[in-house]
Amino acid sequence: MRALYWDGRELRFEPNYSIARSRIDDRGSTIVGATSGRQPAAANPTALVKIHLAGICSTDLQILKGYMGFTGVLGHEFVGSVSEGPGEWIGKRVVGEINFGCGDCDNCRRDLSRHCPNRRVMGIVNADGVFAEYVSVPAANLHLVPDNVSDEEAVFTEPLAAAFEILTQIQPNPGDEVLVLGDGKLGNLCAQVLRLTGAKITALGKHEDKLALIKKSGVRTMLLNDWQPRLFDVVVEATGSASGLELALSAVRPRGTLILKSTIAGNYQVSLAPIVINEINVIGSRCGPFADALGALMAKQVSVTPLIEKVYSLADGIDALRHAARPGTKKVILKP
Amino acid sequence: MRALYWDGRELRFEPNYSIARSRIDDRGSTIVGATSGRQPAAANPTALVKIHLAGICSTDLQILKGYMGFTGVLGHEFVGSVSEGPGEWIGKRVVGEINFGCGDCDNCRRDLSRHCPNRRVMGIVNADGVFAEYVSVPAANLHLVPDNVSDEEAVFTEPLAAAFEILTQIQPNPGDEVLVLGDGKLGNLCAQVLRLTGAKITALGKHEDKLALIKKSGVRTMLLNDWQPRLFDVVVEATGSASGLELALSAVRPRGTLILKSTIAGNYQVSLAPIVINEINVIGSRCGPFADALGALMAKQVSVTPLIEKVYSLADGIDALRHAARPGTKKVILKP
Repeated sequence: MRALYWDGRELRFEPNYSIARSRIDDRGSTIVGATSGRQPAAANPTALVKIHLAGICSTDLQILKGYMGFTGVLGHEFVGSVSEGPGEWIGKRVVGEINFGCGDCDNCRRDLSRHCPNRRVMGIVNADGVFAEYVSVPAANLHLVPDNVSDEEAVFTEPLAAAFEILTQIQPNPGDEVLVLGDGKLGNLCAQVLRLTGAKITALGKHEDKLALIKKSGVRTMLLNDWQPRLFDVVVEATGSASGLELALSAVRPRGTLILKSTIAGNYQVSLAPIVINEINVIGSRCGPFADALGALMAKQVSVTPLIEKVYSLADGIDALRHAARPGTKKVILKP
Repeated sequence: MRALYWDGRELRFEPNYSIARSRIDDRGSTIVGATSGRQPAAANPTALVKIHLAGICSTDLQILKGYMGFTGVLGHEFVGSVSEGPGEWIGKRVVGEINFGCGDCDNCRRDLSRHCPNRRVMGIVNADGVFAEYVSVPAANLHLVPDNVSDEEAVFTEPLAAAFEILTQIQPNPGDEVLVLGDGKLGNLCAQVLRLTGAKITALGKHEDKLALIKKSGVRTMLLNDWQPRLFDVVVEATGSASGLELALSAVRPRGTLILKSTIAGNYQVSLAPIVINEINVIGSRCGPFADALGALMAKQVSVTPLIEKVYSLADGIDALRHAARPGTKKVILKP
């Protein structure tokens, strides 16, 4: 099959990547570079999913800079249809959760397989990803896409679920003042999701066009140049920059909450004194509930397709990733 | 009166510090260096407290390194008796909360005057402290010391309240595994307070003698040299060092809680990625409820007097602060 393969130094388009190399072990996880094609265990069956669309995420770009030391087929945001696997799934249009837990540990037993210490993560840790014609996924990770949700919408399920993760961690009150820092894709989705709580959302960013997009969802927006220091009950850091983090810390009221939404590869020089003095609650927030994201897409509560920058064919994937890496780019999509 | 005065460069014992310089404004706060002795407003009366004992805290030592840019009489941990002020307080043995709020702002109205943006803080921000014969304190900040609590115990109320602050922020379950990092005074008090919840406490430190002290309270202890990496539901960082913070972050289970208990003056180089990837909840924790601390002292639920290193006279205060600054020193007390 065709695939975009990252060998740790070079990203290559491979016209004949062997799906056998991407087969499944008996714990239901994809093994990168496995030489023999063992069959999946009946207890944890896997599905082969034909990719319709795949989204490029900034985590993919960080991997190309060495993040997680990953090698294999890149990508973890997708919508597709099941071509092989358990009978009830065949032909169904699906999205899939990206963490493949071991199924045995305390976290997996507590329904926290996304925190399994031995997990593989699609296109990120020891499992081939979705910038390819097909991907192998444990069937337990799949979610059905509702009929009224298009492929172009469904491909946003994974990042939208990450935004919904915030609501599994905090419950803002209707009157609460919430600041979302960053007007990129993640900031946009976080602002839209938080708006559903009835809290008063302000999105702060550097780009007039992107803020205009967020404003269409009924969120107050502000250019960074117009920023006047003030305090919020909740601040969501979705810029992934050191300066964003510093501004975020300065904008949380005493005993308020700071949600860290960006996975940051580097080390930042930050003073932790404000966290202690103001008794701030800092909450790291990562992958989230697919069901909530699909529900919101089905109910048309959030608008995601305006976030699409351009759709590339998989063969032009290297150009697509280059495009996605330009500062300020919206979502770049691959179509195998 | 006699007082230990810090002018920003030099710590001096002043045999004749003018209490007039430490008078009260009409918002009930002590003004450092005020030239006229305005009377306190009736709405927020102040009390003049004769100091029995005062404790030296590491914050005092940080102030001598420039923390908060404070100048004035140092010190904020005390027990004393009221010599002037509202009639009902005269002659009573008291301890006092250290934050003097404005009384007008949102935080003060929400009973969060310790987070008032305009607050003065005894011996820390714009208010004379307790390394003196007398201190002026808003009467609203005073708490009565129970008869069965000695001066030597009561002088620990402020740091003990800071340990109890943790229980206003999190409620560990009886079976939870809790790691307290640091075997100093703060670590000791935090371990004792957390033990009251029924959670399983482990105290990790560098000093056999100090760990032995913590062990007497029924807390499991471990030398840093014997540390084997493992994960805890809750980790309390009470070392105030960069290496402690790093170890703390590595010892919190996914979705677990990290309590930051030390006010840290400097900037630390830390990677925030583990907070996001493991969805850790980091909670800054500062001053706490005096009533809970006094209740625990009254019920003999915690043991504090073994933490006393030495009692100095106020005239020997400079030596006392030098002693307190030696690494590994327990609580040094001043007696005016």
